[in-house]
Amino acid sequence: MAYGLARRELRPRVPLRPGEGEKHHLTSLEGLATLSLDALSSVAYGPEAIVLALVAAGTGALAATLPITLAITFLLAALVVSYGQVIAVHPDGGGAYAVAKKDLGPTASLLAAASLVVDYVLTVCVSLTAGADALTSAFPALAHDKLLVCLVGLALLTAVNLRGVAESARVLMLPTVLFIVAILGVIVVGLLRTHPAAVVGAAQPVHATETLGILLILKAFSSGCSALTGVEAIANAVPTFRTPRVKRAQCTELMLGALLGLMLIGLAVLIRRDHVAPRGDVTVLAQLTAGAYGDGWAYYATNLLVTLVLGLAANTSFGGLPVLMSLLARDHRLPHLFGLRAERPVYRYGVLALALLAAVLLVAADADTHRLIPLFAIGVFIGFTLSQVGLVRHWAAQKPVGWKRRALINGTGAVLTTLAGIILLTTKFLEGAWVVVIAVPLLMLLFDRIQRYYTAVGEELQLGRVPDPPDRRAGSLVIVPLGEVSKLARHAITAALALGDEVVAVAVHADPDRTRILEESWERWNPGVRLDIIDSPHRSLVQPIVDYVQRAAGNGRQIAVLIPEVEPRHRRYEILQNQRGLLLATVLRARTDVVVCMLPYRLSV
Amino acid sequence: MAYGLARRELRPRVPLRPGEGEKHHLTSLEGLATLSLDALSSVAYGPEAIVLALVAAGTGALAATLPITLAITFLLAALVVSYGQVIAVHPDGGGAYAVAKKDLGPTASLLAAASLVVDYVLTVCVSLTAGADALTSAFPALAHDKLLVCLVGLALLTAVNLRGVAESARVLMLPTVLFIVAILGVIVVGLLRTHPAAVVGAAQPVHATETLGILLILKAFSSGCSALTGVEAIANAVPTFRTPRVKRAQCTELMLGALLGLMLIGLAVLIRRDHVAPRGDVTVLAQLTAGAYGDGWAYYATNLLVTLVLGLAANTSFGGLPVLMSLLARDHRLPHLFGLRAERPVYRYGVLALALLAAVLLVAADADTHRLIPLFAIGVFIGFTLSQVGLVRHWAAQKPVGWKRRALINGTGAVLTTLAGIILLTTKFLEGAWVVVIAVPLLMLLFDRIQRYYTAVGEELQLGRVPDPPDRRAGSLVIVPLGEVSKLARHAITAALALGDEVVAVAVHADPDRTRILEESWERWNPGVRLDIIDSPHRSLVQPIVDYVQRAAGNGRQIAVLIPEVEPRHRRYEILQNQRGLLLATVLRARTDVVVCMLPYRLSV
Repeated sequence: MAYGLARRELRPRVPLRPGEGEKHHLTSLEGLATLSLDALSSVAYGPEAIVLALVAAGTGALAATLPITLAITFLLAALVVSYGQVIAVHPDGGGAYAVAKKDLGPTASLLAAASLVVDYVLTVCVSLTAGADALTSAFPALAHDKLLVCLVGLALLTAVNLRGVAESARVLMLPTVLFIVAILGVIVVGLLRTHPAAVVGAAQPVHATETLGILLILKAFSSGCSALTGVEAIANAVPTFRTPRVKRAQCTELMLGALLGLMLIGLAVLIRRDHVAPRGDVTVLAQLTAGAYGDGWAYYATNLLVTLVLGLAANTSFGGLPVLMSLLARDHRLPHLFGLRAERPVYRYGVLALALLAAVLLVAADADTHRLIPLFAIGVFIGFTLSQVGLVRHWAAQKPVGWKRRALINGTGAVLTTLAGIILLTTKFLEGAWVVVIAVPLLMLLFDRIQRYYTAVGEELQLGRVPDPPDRRAGSLVIVPLGEVSKLARHAITAALALGDEVVAVAVHADPDRTRILEESWERWNPGVRLDIIDSPHRSLVQPIVDYVQRAAGNGRQIAVLIPEVEPRHRRYEILQNQRGLLLATVLRARTDVVVCMLPYRLSV
Repeated sequence: MAYGLARRELRPRVPLRPGEGEKHHLTSLEGLATLSLDALSSVAYGPEAIVLALVAAGTGALAATLPITLAITFLLAALVVSYGQVIAVHPDGGGAYAVAKKDLGPTASLLAAASLVVDYVLTVCVSLTAGADALTSAFPALAHDKLLVCLVGLALLTAVNLRGVAESARVLMLPTVLFIVAILGVIVVGLLRTHPAAVVGAAQPVHATETLGILLILKAFSSGCSALTGVEAIANAVPTFRTPRVKRAQCTELMLGALLGLMLIGLAVLIRRDHVAPRGDVTVLAQLTAGAYGDGWAYYATNLLVTLVLGLAANTSFGGLPVLMSLLARDHRLPHLFGLRAERPVYRYGVLALALLAAVLLVAADADTHRLIPLFAIGVFIGFTLSQVGLVRHWAAQKPVGWKRRALINGTGAVLTTLAGIILLTTKFLEGAWVVVIAVPLLMLLFDRIQRYYTAVGEELQLGRVPDPPDRRAGSLVIVPLGEVSKLARHAITAALALGDEVVAVAVHADPDRTRILEESWERWNPGVRLDIIDSPHRSLVQPIVDYVQRAAGNGRQIAVLIPEVEPRHRRYEILQNQRGLLLATVLRARTDVVVCMLPYRLSV
């Protein structure tokens, strides 16, 4: 049966509600292990993005990697501090959407929602492509099938999520811890060595096409900001922490910030010292890995680990988007259907939609990480900015002790992220950012249209107003379409008699002989119910019944048509049964206002 | 609305029932014009099939064309005479299936049905490929895209039939008459000339690979028999004739036989005189046309006419197969669904199935007429033989005056067609006939399995036996799932009160606040119906209600779940409404035995 609606294990970003078993909740460290995946894994492409941007001005320009990284780390610090505040103010999950809705009003929340959707799709794409990069660094043979690798990975994630894996947050811990150890190891071991242990990948000529001007630096900076994606994840998931939630979450956010900053700076230092430039199909991180661990098994192991972690990072979107969609649905900004996140069929729509969008994007960008990053970072920075601005508003409104200082912190955060966002947008506009500039408003428009529609419906249904009392005087007539006299007929008439004040059976027949036979057997059975026989020379079943029903309607009676359905034991027989009933039901529901009732009758064959 | 179930104009093979407006019925000549299309159009490929078979023994062997054609014409005569009898004995449409069922019992009728289905599919394919041949004779540029031409033609036919054209038999008259005139013209004018007016198509070298032995002659004969396909059409459609039906139909059958025989012999004479051999991409008929009319406009006109007529011949299957399917459905040998031929959605299944099968076959045979003909003729000869044998049985049983003579006629027909069939099968087995040898038994098996299933169901439902009287003591409980208090709720509760002895509303809610709000507004409304609220922390809607319903079941009460459906005015809004209701209904119907009622509520937005 397709509808296995058993409770799905909750995923990292799904807020648990209070009192749902503390033991399910996370300590600070567990939180770090389970929620930092998305953010930490971005060290796989962030630093590389800087290098790729700078190298346009020749290998000499690579020296600028470190200062740029320091600037990014400063921005990170600001983000961490102000997300600490977000956590304090929104202990029940301060996703950018929730914050914007609470403190900034509808338009801002639409903006947040749209950019989050874009963000989820791009998280999948970028993580997959970066994962493919890591994999091809270890196995250069795959270099020409990167797109294929990504699509296979996507198919895998989709399949796993369609099956609805009982995935517990704990699953993510081990890989994350290993990843952290491995990367820190690369940095420490790398720094201890005087020169790289091994150099992998074919050297490629570098042509300086630009000079190291301010624009190029800004480009490198904005590309590098892609390393900051995912730091909001913790603030979205405060309810999944063990009490004291806020303290623990803030602590986790701090640890995440420290770790990420440490990694970024460490890698930058190594990049500078070893003059790491793009080499063949080998990522910067892979080069540093080889520099630290040599090109032996440790090199392969680390690359595979990075691939795995990036795959898991992509997977977080599959957990996150359905949650966002259900929030939007509850605010009437997506079909209400999506509010039923726990219903597997519904959940599947979300998964498939996400997979489809990601696939399109992957093909469009030919699985090139650095074509996707410009699109990626923007959505993220919109979210950052909105949360900060929201908080500033919050402080200004609440005015708690020291609100000025707090507002200042968030204000600074807001200004910085806005700046970064603008830089990103302007420097990367032609390189793909324009897609986001088109997609986000379109999504906002869609959400808005849907909301307007639901509002209109609500008004028509007079939601909130007290309706007139229900009418109790209405009698009822139940019409039972029948083909022949049988146990099925008895079953149906019995049910009809239980439901209707008056019951009438109706049969549509083409040839007179069959009609006569039916009439005779009906008399012999004599169920105490009238049988009307409609003649239909053209073997049409539906229209005659629809006409009959419409004639019967009126004089305030409630009309119901009760259609008995024979349920075969095996699916493969379904085409042999009920098709006429379903056809009739469909047309009746489309064309008449009567109640259409389906009565199952289970067969043993 | 997809369900335009208006009465479709009848198609040639759809039997009208008596007293359905004499003016709709056909005179002998009209009958000829409307029902002979399929048969007459086969002169476009029949003679050519003979030539192609013989030429394997060199151009000299082509002399054998005439005698072989005479043999085929003799067979034709026998068929015409015995179909005259078929018409007399089965005035209400003596299709091979009907005859076999009546006189030969189940297995024979299954055989007839299976071969008819195969025949319908192949009529489409062969007519299309032959049509493409005629077209490419006029426009050699298309020669390399024959398959494409065929598929486009098929797509066209499918589209037209899906739309369900109001096609009246009369439509076919003009083309048929023109066709008859054109072909007879080719013969007469051709014979008047001393030598061909024009020679079209590039001469191609003929290598004699075989000697003109008995086998080759039999091959040529059996290939040529494809010219006889379609002579049964009239016997299938007796009820479409104006009274006296039998007389008129017999007269038409006679005229058809005479015309077809005349054409075949005439063309054979021309072939012999002009030593017509296969030339380039030009059909034999096209060569004869050029020989008679020259290669001017008349040549193009005739070829286009032939193409059109063959296209219309292909179309007859689209009219015929649904009828056969509905007959089979009424005999429980196909899903009962197909009994509702007049319902457009059902009719569409048939059309699509036919189109799909034809497309597969066209691709498999690469649109080569002479690869398909072996498959084609066999199905037809099975039909022929069964009708004849059936009649022999009939005469032997009824023993009317002169039954021996009649039995002799049909017996001869049966023997001849059997012989022809066996020749066809043996000589063409490897050239494709094997496909039929596999397909026909498989179809028979399928029909039989379906029939067995329906029999089993019939026994379980005790069809024919008088069931116990319906139970009148059962009370009823109507459960109404509700989201909030509104006009929709009032609408639903009113309907529920009309149908149920007891009514209870049930709401599934995730968060306490909404629950409280609902409870309060319910009290304010106070509809005199209990509201049960189910807590569902995981935002699952369906499972909680299914559980609730299952708890409520028992103690003989009839349980019904009434699901109100909001019907938006525009289709595009449907995704925004009812999805939850439909999901709930699906699961309830799959998992419980309660009555599931859908109550529409039409919106103005």
